[in-house]
Parts: sequence; structure tokens; C-alpha cells
Amino acid sequence: MSQLTLYHYWRSSCSWRVRWALELKKIPYQSVAVNLLKNEQQDPVYTQKSPAGLVPCLEFGGQYLSESIAILEWLEERYPQMPLLPRNLWDRAKVRELVGLIASDTQPIQNLKVLKFRSSDQKERAVWAKHFISEGLVAYEKAIQKTVGTYSFGGQITFADLCLIPQVYNAHRFNVDMNQLPYCEAIYQRCLKLPSCDAAAPHNQPGAQP
Amino acid sequence: MSQLTLYHYWRSSCSWRVRWALELKKIPYQSVAVNLLKNEQQDPVYTQKSPAGLVPCLEFGGQYLSESIAILEWLEERYPQMPLLPRNLWDRAKVRELVGLIASDTQPIQNLKVLKFRSSDQKERAVWAKHFISEGLVAYEKAIQKTVGTYSFGGQITFADLCLIPQVYNAHRFNVDMNQLPYCEAIYQRCLKLPSCDAAAPHNQPGAQP
Repeated sequence: MSQLTLYHYWRSSCSWRVRWALELKKIPYQSVAVNLLKNEQQDPVYTQKSPAGLVPCLEFGGQYLSESIAILEWLEERYPQMPLLPRNLWDRAKVRELVGLIASDTQPIQNLKVLKFRSSDQKERAVWAKHFISEGLVAYEKAIQKTVGTYSFGGQITFADLCLIPQVYNAHRFNVDMNQLPYCEAIYQRCLKLPSCDAAAPHNQPGAQP
Repeated sequence: MSQLTLYHYWRSSCSWRVRWALELKKIPYQSVAVNLLKNEQQDPVYTQKSPAGLVPCLEFGGQYLSESIAILEWLEERYPQMPLLPRNLWDRAKVRELVGLIASDTQPIQNLKVLKFRSSDQKERAVWAKHFISEGLVAYEKAIQKTVGTYSFGGQITFADLCLIPQVYNAHRFNVDMNQLPYCEAIYQRCLKLPSCDAAAPHNQPGAQP
């Protein structure tokens, strides 16, 4: 019996970040699917766990934690094996800067909640999502010019990659021009081949649609 | 001569977070105003510092760091006096969860960049901002039910308050109904009276307009 249960949705990019961290750190967990399309995140039993009705949500010892970056930071402090932040303080800060470019400046503006409020028209939604994903990833591409190696920050997989890969996955969904994003695309292709990333990817989750 | 220079804009809520942390930790810094209304953040000299043209941006030893949460985390690791995160690992995580509710789920959706893309009409922009600020703060209000004390997380000022106060300031600007947010409003009123918060507030910054 593992200590952790993860409530998540197969297509949620924030869920993928956490699943990948759990795989990298080899932390076993129970998996519970929350179907956003059926509004299961608003079920009163679920909002006892995550008051704002968010996925992912992590259960540990009868307590619950939402917000993917908070979960990543907790996993890093509680399970220090396979570190996902550098040791050097400034390097850690630069990785968290990359995290912010995706987790604050890009993903939230293109998520389902915002698209629904923007328009009921799928084409208008797609224009919106493509615009902000493209802008966000262009900023990320510039930001990694000095640090890029095998991954976003040299040769170590960090929180930054955990945020980047699901965002590039969304970029492909919304037909963002990846020619302007050669580093992001190369890191994406490289990471998809990692067993840890693949195990955490949408298509391998319960409830995934082709 | 202080070690740090902060590039910021008086009305930027993300800038306020960092200014307040610097005040609380009593870290001296040079202040450089970047006028977003004059697009100074896109000036090529500035984008050498912050490639994505973001405020705030912190300079330390000739290196530059953008993204307010990355800056807060670095300040906390580099200047541990007056801690802004609890010691207990789960408590730290719960504070970072609150941070995410504002810094990922609320502020980015109502910032100037998004409002400009949404519409050129001020009324349409206001409807958008009010909707997402209200939704975000309602989630925050629910999330602090079990932890609220003098501040969001008991009696300690944390990263969560650093994010909350500038967001409530924006809520007032956009006429969000604060009657539905009694805890948020009470913490806001309490914090505004703190000399550290006031010194960091928009009206006390260079370039502030009445």
C-alpha cells in the first residue's frame, strides 16, 4: 500500500507534471481519475479534498494538497532522491524562473476554464490558445539560450522540463509553429522517449481517449 | 551600495510581492522604475536583462532573475532572516498551494497583456478581470478556512499574503464584491497598516500616479 494517492485527469498538463515527478523519484502512488469533462472536479465529495475543484490533488496521510508546483516542491523536500532542482541557489532560482514562464505566464491563460469563458466557438478558442501558447514558449525559448543542454537546464531534468513538455504537447494540439522553437521541440522529442515521461503521459492514463 | 537592484513598475502586483519581501527581510536594494505604459519593458537594453520583458526583475552580481515567485524563493534561501515560509514541510506545501491559487490561477489571467488581447473596450476588459479575480479569490477564501489567523496561514506572514494583498488591491480596482470574501478583506486591511507592506505599496513607488 503506497502512502500517496494522486487525483488527476489524463489530459491535464498540470497532472502530467506531477505524474512525471513521481515516476522520476520512483514513488509509488494510487491513481484516481477525475473526469473534467463530466465535471467530477465539482462533485461535493471531491471538493472536500480540493476546495477549488482542481486537479491534480495529492493525498498524504489523510491530508490533501492541490496546485502542481506546490506538490512538486513538497515532493522535492520530502523525497530528495533524484533531485529535480539544482543545488546551487542561483541555479535553483533560474529553474524556478523557467517554471514561472510556463506555470504562471502560459498554461493558466490557455486552460479549459479560460477558453470556455472566452467563447463557445471552438475556432475562437483555438486562436486564443495558440496565441498565448506561442507567446509563452517564445519567451521560454529565449530564456533557455544560455542554459540549454540535453534538457532546459543543462544535463539535469528539472521542474522546468516537467512544465515544458506538457506545454509543448498542448502547443502541438493547437498547431503552434514549432519551427520558431527549436530548443523546446528538441527537448520535447528527447523527453517523450524517456520511460518516466512516457509512463506519465496522457495516453497512458486511465480514461485516456485516442 | 546594496547588492540588489530591483526593476519594477509601481502598479505591477508581482512587483509588490517582491518589494514587500525585501522590506520584511530588511534587505536594501536599488530601485529602477520600468514604465509598462511606455513599453519600456520591450526596450532592447531591458530585454538584455529580462528576455521576456517582464517586471519585476532582480539584479544580483551582474546576473538577472525574473518571475516573482522564483525571486521570492531565492530571497528565502539566500536571506533566511524573517522566514516567509513555515518550517514544517506540509505547512510549506500548503502555503505554496495558496501561492498557486493567486500566482498561477488568478493574476496571470487578469494582467494587462491578456486584457489587451481580450478587447480594446475598457468595459469588456473590466468584465473579464472582475470575473477571474472574483473566481480566484473565492477559491482562496475557501482554501484558508482551516488556516486563517492574523494572516492567511496563522500568525506568520508568508508568501501567500505577499501574493494575496496585491490581488485584493486589484479586486478593489475592478469592483469585486468583497462581502463574499471576508477573510481576504480582513487580512488585506490588516496588512495595509503594516509599515513593510505600505512601503512596498504602489502609491509609494517612483512614477506612481494618484
